[in-house]
Amino acid sequence: MSSNADQDLNQIFSQLADLLETRHPDRGGDPDSSYSARLLHQGPNAFLKKVGEEAAEVLLAAKDDDPTQIIYEMADLWFHCLVVLSYYQVRPEEVFTELARRQGLSGLAEKAARKK
Amino acid sequence: MSSNADQDLNQIFSQLADLLETRHPDRGGDPDSSYSARLLHQGPNAFLKKVGEEAAEVLLAAKDDDPTQIIYEMADLWFHCLVVLSYYQVRPEEVFTELARRQGLSGLAEKAARKK
Amino acid sequence: MSSNADQDLNQIFSQLADLLETRHPDRGGDPDSSYSARLLHQGPNAFLKKVGEEAAEVLLAAKDDDPTQIIYEMADLWFHCLVVLSYYQVRPEEVFTELARRQGLSGLAEKAARKK
Amino acid sequence: MSSNADQDLNQIFSQLADLLETRHPDRGGDPDSSYSARLLHQGPNAFLKKVGEEAAEVLLAAKDDDPTQIIYEMADLWFHCLVVLSYYQVRPEEVFTELARRQGLSGLAEKAARKK
Repeated sequence: MSSNADQDLNQIFSQLADLLETRHPDRGGDPDSSYSARLLHQGPNAFLKKVGEEAAEVLLAAKDDDPTQIIYEMADLWFHCLVVLSYYQVRPEEVFTELARRQGLSGLAEKAARKK
Repeated sequence: MSSNADQDLNQIFSQLADLLETRHPDRGGDPDSSYSARLLHQGPNAFLKKVGEEAAEVLLAAKDDDPTQIIYEMADLWFHCLVVLSYYQVRPEEVFTELARRQGLSGLAEKAARKK
Repeated sequence: MSSNADQDLNQIFSQLADLLETRHPDRGGDPDSSYSARLLHQGPNAFLKKVGEEAAEVLLAAKDDDPTQIIYEMADLWFHCLVVLSYYQVRPEEVFTELARRQGLSGLAEKAARKK
Repeated sequence: MSSNADQDLNQIFSQLADLLETRHPDRGGDPDSSYSARLLHQGPNAFLKKVGEEAAEVLLAAKDDDPTQIIYEMADLWFHCLVVLSYYQVRPEEVFTELARRQGLSGLAEKAARKK
């Protein structure tokens, strides 16, 4: 898979963050019909526990040297990370900015800084 | 921050994955000058341990209700996740595809499927 | 609670280890009637995942400053640790010996060394 | 190693808990000379992060099927668990009581209940 051609796919974190914003209980999220809404309704311990659990499962999939399982568990981990960010009203783009800043990908970081 | 305007920033995972590919010991990565090269050189336990540690730090930052620290620790966690993926030759876009598939963001998923 | 009067209670790890030995599938453990037998039957990933999950729950209970919950989650964590040890045929007393050795509780460590 | 003959060794958690009580900053613990005192002085995030890290290392040692490393990492995990308990003023015997209660080791549990 090309690493440059997936501009749309690369927006999945932003899109999921947009979706999760609609899942908050005070914005109409329905705990009965949506898993995300249920986690956000139950509060931090519910989804933070999942972050710990999914991180452990990433470790196990990696030690099993099983790329398919790694993809699956990493998707689980990242999804629950996005729930954490949503609950605390942090956008994934803010984490991307921090990553860009650290790596000295200076063009990107500057662009992000200007956008703020 | 707009969630749609950051197309370039949204490519940070792909860009970091490209960078990490150059950090593998057998592709010229230098463990003495690069933290990523050192982790990849030391092998799975070195960076998998960090995933566990950084996941714990995300939990602590969240329970401290500290958005700045959440951003910082989440960046740490995601970076080490990208090292895991790089070591096992999985692209972050493959995880994005799995996330898109699950969420039923059907247009995106179809596009990703066609690109494979 | 006195820390010295609970000699019998202090044997709980040894007693649980003895019990877990009877839960191994090849020693008559029944996955249908015993949670421990089921974990041991399912194999490492089943109980190692629980160690990660319960460690996360200890963190959350601690950050909630909730001693009752800390006791509950720590019991969960330690129990699953004993399942790990049992599966890999390590006795908890061997971990106690290592702890005694490190802490320089020299009398205890010497006694343990002589018993081996 | 016999699982019944190590009554003294089985008191290691109680003994470490007694020791850790003397390491609290307000009881004379010296952060400069004692690792435990330093953790207790730094506060919850310092030792809770270690619990997450050591739990991850137990997982890795287990997946490596390395009993010596399992013993070493489990000792690390349990030690930091005892630091958690000490900070929140929970005795390990209280966790033992909970474990005994769950397992229906009724004689032990009753004895513990009477002691409270």
